[in-house]
Amino acid sequence: MKDIQNNFTMLCDFYEITMGNGYFKCGYGDRIVYFDMFYRQNPDEGGYAIVAGLEQIVEYIQNLKFTDADIEYLRGRKCFDEEFLEFLRNFRFTGSIWAIPEGTVVFPGEPLMIVKGRAIEAQFIETYVLMQINHQSLIATKASRLARAAKGRAISEFGSRRAQGADAAILGARAAYIGGCTGTACTISDIVYGVPATGTMAHSWVQMFDDEYTAFKTYCEIYPENATLLIDTYSVLDSGLPNAIKAFKEILLPKGITKCGVRIDSGDITYLTKKIRKRLDEEGLTDCRIIVSNSLDEYIIRELIRQGAEIDAFGVGERLITAKSDPVFGGVYKLCAVENENGEILPKIKISENVGKITTPHFKKVYRLRGRDTGKAEADLICLHDETVDDSGSIEIFDPEYTWKRKTLENFKAEELLVPIFRDGELVYSLPSIEEIRAHCKAEIEGTWDEVRRFNNPHNYYVDLSEKLWTIKNEMINSRKKKH
Amino acid sequence: MKDIQNNFTMLCDFYEITMGNGYFKCGYGDRIVYFDMFYRQNPDEGGYAIVAGLEQIVEYIQNLKFTDADIEYLRGRKCFDEEFLEFLRNFRFTGSIWAIPEGTVVFPGEPLMIVKGRAIEAQFIETYVLMQINHQSLIATKASRLARAAKGRAISEFGSRRAQGADAAILGARAAYIGGCTGTACTISDIVYGVPATGTMAHSWVQMFDDEYTAFKTYCEIYPENATLLIDTYSVLDSGLPNAIKAFKEILLPKGITKCGVRIDSGDITYLTKKIRKRLDEEGLTDCRIIVSNSLDEYIIRELIRQGAEIDAFGVGERLITAKSDPVFGGVYKLCAVENENGEILPKIKISENVGKITTPHFKKVYRLRGRDTGKAEADLICLHDETVDDSGSIEIFDPEYTWKRKTLENFKAEELLVPIFRDGELVYSLPSIEEIRAHCKAEIEGTWDEVRRFNNPHNYYVDLSEKLWTIKNEMINSRKKKH
Repeated sequence: MKDIQNNFTMLCDFYEITMGNGYFKCGYGDRIVYFDMFYRQNPDEGGYAIVAGLEQIVEYIQNLKFTDADIEYLRGRKCFDEEFLEFLRNFRFTGSIWAIPEGTVVFPGEPLMIVKGRAIEAQFIETYVLMQINHQSLIATKASRLARAAKGRAISEFGSRRAQGADAAILGARAAYIGGCTGTACTISDIVYGVPATGTMAHSWVQMFDDEYTAFKTYCEIYPENATLLIDTYSVLDSGLPNAIKAFKEILLPKGITKCGVRIDSGDITYLTKKIRKRLDEEGLTDCRIIVSNSLDEYIIRELIRQGAEIDAFGVGERLITAKSDPVFGGVYKLCAVENENGEILPKIKISENVGKITTPHFKKVYRLRGRDTGKAEADLICLHDETVDDSGSIEIFDPEYTWKRKTLENFKAEELLVPIFRDGELVYSLPSIEEIRAHCKAEIEGTWDEVRRFNNPHNYYVDLSEKLWTIKNEMINSRKKKH
Repeated sequence: MKDIQNNFTMLCDFYEITMGNGYFKCGYGDRIVYFDMFYRQNPDEGGYAIVAGLEQIVEYIQNLKFTDADIEYLRGRKCFDEEFLEFLRNFRFTGSIWAIPEGTVVFPGEPLMIVKGRAIEAQFIETYVLMQINHQSLIATKASRLARAAKGRAISEFGSRRAQGADAAILGARAAYIGGCTGTACTISDIVYGVPATGTMAHSWVQMFDDEYTAFKTYCEIYPENATLLIDTYSVLDSGLPNAIKAFKEILLPKGITKCGVRIDSGDITYLTKKIRKRLDEEGLTDCRIIVSNSLDEYIIRELIRQGAEIDAFGVGERLITAKSDPVFGGVYKLCAVENENGEILPKIKISENVGKITTPHFKKVYRLRGRDTGKAEADLICLHDETVDDSGSIEIFDPEYTWKRKTLENFKAEELLVPIFRDGELVYSLPSIEEIRAHCKAEIEGTWDEVRRFNNPHNYYVDLSEKLWTIKNEMINSRKKKH
């Protein structure tokens, strides 16, 4: 039985521990190293992603601790000696972490998080850091796409039942809210994370009664202020809608209540919602909202609206909570520098047979260059940690692959994206509320050009390297290749 | 901060509570009802699924309890009165549950679980029951496909970093092991669920050292019994492989150790592994295993083996832990009967505009009809709860849609698939160990015909209704349709 009580220390790939022991044994354990967490491709071939998951990583870092049971397990593996186990018993995270705040629009190739610490600790947190950012960024990005497709209509997340485990449901609802959903069906996400939970009825409610009208009438009597009726248990137009109208008129209108709703979860949505709207309006129920669900995603929502479907709100389940069309946010965690005995930072690179897997070395910072007049993000620039971008004049940036592709920016301001989270093991970041994160995300989307937000063939946003960083990277690739 | 300590009571769609309150208010709270949990389509257009997740549902049911904080939250919602909240405060599950044991091969349309209980409680557990079975069955099914593609080669699950949350990683590893994986990278899954955790090294280990050879040599010195070296950090054939061979010869062979391994995570796997095998064998390192990873799935694995790639074991990450190609197991939970005041069971049906969404009514049992000579499953038969299949003679079964499609089975034995788990709130099932579940799954796969196991266009396994059940269902559809 799982009983981990917020301590996810052992949610790590076993090799983090064998490597940690290896560093310990060969005297590298205390060596200061730098890891970058970044991703290589936007989900769904989109133009951007929304980063999320930092709050849970902060919690994880603060709760990092090997329990006696963990030590006992590791001893039983018979590949660690007592000296290392004793080290683990007293282990805590003493490193520094910089991260891009949750809800920010981010792009492939730039560090979303930088971890500086002793080799053992910086290596150790890899699995959890990746899992958390990968999961929540995936769902927040999907929700952002859905919210844009819905053009201001409400989107309620209700995929818990199809989620890949409890955390996928609970934190998926959190990430979906950050990305732009208006609420969730998942009650615990409201209690723990403040995501507004709402809900109406299932088909079982309707089936439970001898007839559909009695089911609707009873519901309206119990919840007159919140009567959204599911009208597709038997037949939407022949039975569900007339019974709902009758119940609204007999129970709600006499109380002076005009706000109500109907939901359909099957059938031809465009056809049915147009018919429903017409009948409701004819009956004077103009305040009655129409809510639809049934395997929706951003493309279907966009198409329904284009077809003129009469929809006030959407319920989105499995295709949001699993990001079904592209369910992996492929973030990676790569060593990019180590310090030598004199505290000098030595860049590290990983070459690969797959060019796309070559890493960018060194301890870095990231600037977002934003037009002062437009407020729109124009490009991100990855620099060495000790470089500064002067935004009082103009700057020339260039594509790191096709270096002849150059662009001069003027009248821009340079914002640093990575902010300090932990410094020498101490939390130095004040975690924003979920409402603040959500508002930040909304502003972030507004701060990108339409071209970046397109679903199909979006503009390839510039994420360039500074001249200095580009030079270091290319010299390392060339010198490595010359060796063979 | 999440602090739920194994109590997932509030991991429920909010409407389970509003409906529960509704049943309570209108006097239906104590009415005995029956829900079926079933699914409609096999993942990846496959011929079967592996059911999993029961153990966690047992745990969930046993821990069901509304805490003071939960009650306080619900009171704050201002739609529940004190009488109902008091009822919840003393709530525990008092119903009965039947389920198909974990690791069993299952098919669309048949109940994987039947819940009988008071309306409130049977309704309430919907979200968690679905989430758990949907998630673990999805991953167990995917793992089963991968294991079959690998034809006896080991498959290690190492997708934690790409999992959709902590439970997706932890229980995903459990489900993958049930389905046929040989182990996991996820340490906590070993501690909590006994899934063997293993691991070797990441690219960061290689980068941490001044040169690749020193990295390999150091690793062999520390882990001589378990030296699997990752050889693609710089160049597999020009650097990684020669350095690995040198380290094996200098460190392992003098100790008399010949067992070792190399892993590649990029590049052309077929080409590289053939080259690697040849070089290793030329060097006398015939015991050195070759392990490959890099976005593998069952189709790529099958194709690599067909091409003659020299592979001893696979590491599978994101495409297993998220079931990337089809990441939703669409299980549903539907009311199928209610008892009246006299204890008579009244069947309930849900009609739908989408024919595939029409449910099969009534309290049921499921038989698997298996050839006595072959040991292979021939068909499943869904019956009324009080029917018995006589397997001493022959039986004629028929397709519920195309009723002229008939088949007579002889020399078969009839096995009941659903076993009692809870009876009136008490656990009556002895939970098998994970090794027992995994062995059961293996036997189950062996007990199906090849035609059902095909990846492409598998045989459509018969899941038929008894004559009595078919008649009841069709009469209900017809009488419902006649009303309009």
